[in-house]
Amino acid sequence: MMKTKFQHVALIGKYQTLGMHASVQHSKAALEAVARFLIAQGCDVAVEHETAENTGLAGFPCLSVAEMGAQCDVGLVVGGDGTMLGIGRKVAAYGLPLIGINQGRLGFITDIAYDHFETTLAPMLQGHYEEDHRSLIDARVMREGVCVFKAQAMNDVVVNRGAAASMVELRVEVDDHFVANQRADGLIIATATGSTAYALSAGGPLLHPSIPGWVMAPIAPHTLSNRPIVLANTSRIAIEIVAGRDASASFDMQSLASLAHGDRIEVGRSEHHVRFLHPKGWSYFDTLRKKLHWNEGGPTP
Amino acid sequence: MMKTKFQHVALIGKYQTLGMHASVQHSKAALEAVARFLIAQGCDVAVEHETAENTGLAGFPCLSVAEMGAQCDVGLVVGGDGTMLGIGRKVAAYGLPLIGINQGRLGFITDIAYDHFETTLAPMLQGHYEEDHRSLIDARVMREGVCVFKAQAMNDVVVNRGAAASMVELRVEVDDHFVANQRADGLIIATATGSTAYALSAGGPLLHPSIPGWVMAPIAPHTLSNRPIVLANTSRIAIEIVAGRDASASFDMQSLASLAHGDRIEVGRSEHHVRFLHPKGWSYFDTLRKKLHWNEGGPTP
Amino acid sequence: MMKTKFQHVALIGKYQTLGMHASVQHSKAALEAVARFLIAQGCDVAVEHETAENTGLAGFPCLSVAEMGAQCDVGLVVGGDGTMLGIGRKVAAYGLPLIGINQGRLGFITDIAYDHFETTLAPMLQGHYEEDHRSLIDARVMREGVCVFKAQAMNDVVVNRGAAASMVELRVEVDDHFVANQRADGLIIATATGSTAYALSAGGPLLHPSIPGWVMAPIAPHTLSNRPIVLANTSRIAIEIVAGRDASASFDMQSLASLAHGDRIEVGRSEHHVRFLHPKGWSYFDTLRKKLHWNEGGPTP
Amino acid sequence: MMKTKFQHVALIGKYQTLGMHASVQHSKAALEAVARFLIAQGCDVAVEHETAENTGLAGFPCLSVAEMGAQCDVGLVVGGDGTMLGIGRKVAAYGLPLIGINQGRLGFITDIAYDHFETTLAPMLQGHYEEDHRSLIDARVMREGVCVFKAQAMNDVVVNRGAAASMVELRVEVDDHFVANQRADGLIIATATGSTAYALSAGGPLLHPSIPGWVMAPIAPHTLSNRPIVLANTSRIAIEIVAGRDASASFDMQSLASLAHGDRIEVGRSEHHVRFLHPKGWSYFDTLRKKLHWNEGGPTP
Repeated sequence: MMKTKFQHVALIGKYQTLGMHASVQHSKAALEAVARFLIAQGCDVAVEHETAENTGLAGFPCLSVAEMGAQCDVGLVVGGDGTMLGIGRKVAAYGLPLIGINQGRLGFITDIAYDHFETTLAPMLQGHYEEDHRSLIDARVMREGVCVFKAQAMNDVVVNRGAAASMVELRVEVDDHFVANQRADGLIIATATGSTAYALSAGGPLLHPSIPGWVMAPIAPHTLSNRPIVLANTSRIAIEIVAGRDASASFDMQSLASLAHGDRIEVGRSEHHVRFLHPKGWSYFDTLRKKLHWNEGGPTP
Repeated sequence: MMKTKFQHVALIGKYQTLGMHASVQHSKAALEAVARFLIAQGCDVAVEHETAENTGLAGFPCLSVAEMGAQCDVGLVVGGDGTMLGIGRKVAAYGLPLIGINQGRLGFITDIAYDHFETTLAPMLQGHYEEDHRSLIDARVMREGVCVFKAQAMNDVVVNRGAAASMVELRVEVDDHFVANQRADGLIIATATGSTAYALSAGGPLLHPSIPGWVMAPIAPHTLSNRPIVLANTSRIAIEIVAGRDASASFDMQSLASLAHGDRIEVGRSEHHVRFLHPKGWSYFDTLRKKLHWNEGGPTP
Repeated sequence: MMKTKFQHVALIGKYQTLGMHASVQHSKAALEAVARFLIAQGCDVAVEHETAENTGLAGFPCLSVAEMGAQCDVGLVVGGDGTMLGIGRKVAAYGLPLIGINQGRLGFITDIAYDHFETTLAPMLQGHYEEDHRSLIDARVMREGVCVFKAQAMNDVVVNRGAAASMVELRVEVDDHFVANQRADGLIIATATGSTAYALSAGGPLLHPSIPGWVMAPIAPHTLSNRPIVLANTSRIAIEIVAGRDASASFDMQSLASLAHGDRIEVGRSEHHVRFLHPKGWSYFDTLRKKLHWNEGGPTP
Repeated sequence: MMKTKFQHVALIGKYQTLGMHASVQHSKAALEAVARFLIAQGCDVAVEHETAENTGLAGFPCLSVAEMGAQCDVGLVVGGDGTMLGIGRKVAAYGLPLIGINQGRLGFITDIAYDHFETTLAPMLQGHYEEDHRSLIDARVMREGVCVFKAQAMNDVVVNRGAAASMVELRVEVDDHFVANQRADGLIIATATGSTAYALSAGGPLLHPSIPGWVMAPIAPHTLSNRPIVLANTSRIAIEIVAGRDASASFDMQSLASLAHGDRIEVGRSEHHVRFLHPKGWSYFDTLRKKLHWNEGGPTP
């Protein structure tokens, strides 16, 4: 047996399990199959502690995220894009690379089908893979000069009008230059990873992961010439709530409600990034084409 | 008098004059006023040779673009964005910085109003300015493995269906990865500079000049999920004509008609860039806001 | 003095005053000036009762909406589009035509500038005007087969995700035909009048007031090929909440929060319509051009 | 055998055959199968004369379009949407209803799959069907007051810039009201039928066939607030070429090149419409959903 490039492997399952029994059993069985395969390949296998708790997967060392970061060579995620993003935010500081196996419809970043994971993983464990780095947003909310909230985001930071308000007015500055007062349903700052998520629905462009930029896309803007703009991710973006009751901000999954006038959401680039590993020959464009159904449908002559 | 930072100044006027007498006289008078001011500031003034020919401006040394590049410290352009882009392409290889004075409505890059050019130029000549670099596209058209056309573009490369064809089908590759077969009216590859021009009309995003990327935007695509994408400008993009009679390609102002099936337009980044100088305190975002009429009009509640 | 075509005139002021003293005084003075002019033209003037209360305008008969509908020949509104829409919904059942005078920036429907209202109104009172009819939406919310809410809308009916939900899923039927399950931030059904409001921000088309249709426009839809569609306003549209916590519906200004799964919003055309009178020579297209800043700005070559 | 509702049936095949032998044989065999089935159902079968010529289908009376219109009760089209539109334009004046059978991927209007045409056609011939009417555009080109071209269109009228021009400038009037000067790649006036074709690619809305309107959609407009608008199809739209070399106009498939400044394209509604018959239970929305791939793909959370 060839020596694996990744001796110590951490297994991570669906991160926010919904507690449905059948689904948990399904995940547990999948994780066990992957674990058996890894051991047969000569790897040491540990399980991320929440995964172990949620699925009841036993018989393996159980590690915290920090321990995974310190001791493991790669993280193997069995789940969807949401799981991958959730754990990605946490391990970025440790430089731990991640591989994603998907039991359902393939995602934008979880691109290995569970059905034939063995033949795909085997060469990757020998060191044959493509590496893909994703930037992370570091965001904070400032109120009267004090930081009241901090979060990281792999997809996006979204500022939204309150449910009962007809709009929110936002003053945007980039590196202390005034950009615009935006009146809209909201405003999205998305990473390249997030450019295929909410920002795309709002009319934003796709951003290749190698672009060192963020998409800033308004949601239903009042000014018709207000278009999405791609900003350098080395810039510091500040979004101030100028008008609109009960605005909120969300950072991937985490939300902060009841923003007050004068609150500022500040967005910058994290010093860390997330490392995704893909099978040799993987192409970002193949994924786009499949997920967005290019070359299909649309108008006829 | 303080010593100017730019001793040798080249004057450039409307590059492609339409030969209308009144307009030429107008330009000549403006160039003379700028020349007198420069001399009073202690600069040596030369005139670009086509400018001299077109306007009849006499009494100054007359230089070719290559001579300007070798001998001058700055180029002073009196005209619109089109003039600035035309001369920008030519002087990029020499690293000559450009300042733009506009006699009409201010442009995206010619941002000094002729009406008060003296007060704006004076501090710039002393060295108080903002410097702004723009990438250039190097493009070529390959036919059966042979390069049949070469051009540079500051705005964009556009591949278009023929006038009598209902569409063109284009096979796009990026760094030898297949991206998509696009059926559309055409396809635009735009620089950040070009992102406020044709690509914007086609639904593309704005791109901050510091972003090392190109916008690839389809024009009236048949596939509705076919969205603009921002690609790294270090990539090599190849666009192959797959179907559609009489397709053409244009590179800023230069056009190549009657492309054949199998022809490939290859797009990369030039090793040169263009240097624009702006008054101290200039902001890209101020220009956007004014030119795109943000904070005005649109829907009402 | 020529006999006026409209003997009995009702005056209506800003409908939802924000209670700011200066603004109220401003409105009161404007209403008084209009009243004096109308009396000089031979009209009888009455004041809508809420207008009288809000502004303290005294010395005129004070009428309820029903009394205005029964006794008056025309309503003269001094305010913005919001005021006009608010009173429009109320008087539609009585067939009372409305004329709009605007003290600020002209609106889409309040198109007479206060500054020279006398010269514009005089010929209109003699019968020289253009008449413009607008459809009204009749909407209701059904819960387990029982109608729990009823409202009319001149602009739009909007179903929105809850503030903390990432989307709402809506099942849309038209005349009992299944149309689509929409996952989005929300869905707008807009009249022609509303097509220049929120629906336009969401990417909907403009609809000429003579078109007997509604725009159905998704807000930030998950499916990229999900486009705005224009439906016959004789159709019955049903929108059922399929998924998404805490969805809400709003009908012009009125809102209904906390919709439950299975709730159905039903949209049809009211049997009434609203009558707007405009100065002779008025054109819908002039208004569009001015309000949307056509022929201005945008990309440059 | 029940008496058929349609005694005299005309068969129409691919209208503009490209002369490919295999394809012609394929069509001929399909037409023969349909003919045999119709005869078995008790119908008299005739063949449209160009269809007979193109395919060599013999043994049936051969009719001109005018004869078909005078003598037949229904036209049975075997082909795609293009075939259906081509013959639809020709038979509209005769009120002949059409049924569409498709050998390939189903279209927006040819919605009966060849594979099981017998079971679908049988009840239709007995009178069980849905009837769907489509408006037709009557267009003409006026040069110095003289009509130089006339055409009908079921999909759209498109005015386009010349291939070598950067844009065309068009002055649009509706019922003699000035609408806007549009600078763009072009302008589309589409019927409801055409709203799923080119207009959709250009960003236009879908228009339900029952809407008595046209979509006017600019192609890559210079003014960002220039949005698609739905106009009453009882209006007369005039589009005048103001600037731009070598503009052209096309009317479904027919094109008119080299338009001169001052040329006016006038668009109105034909007094005729096209009648399409669909199987009982047919829904326009089912077709949209399938053709536009709603409920599929798009962004992920």
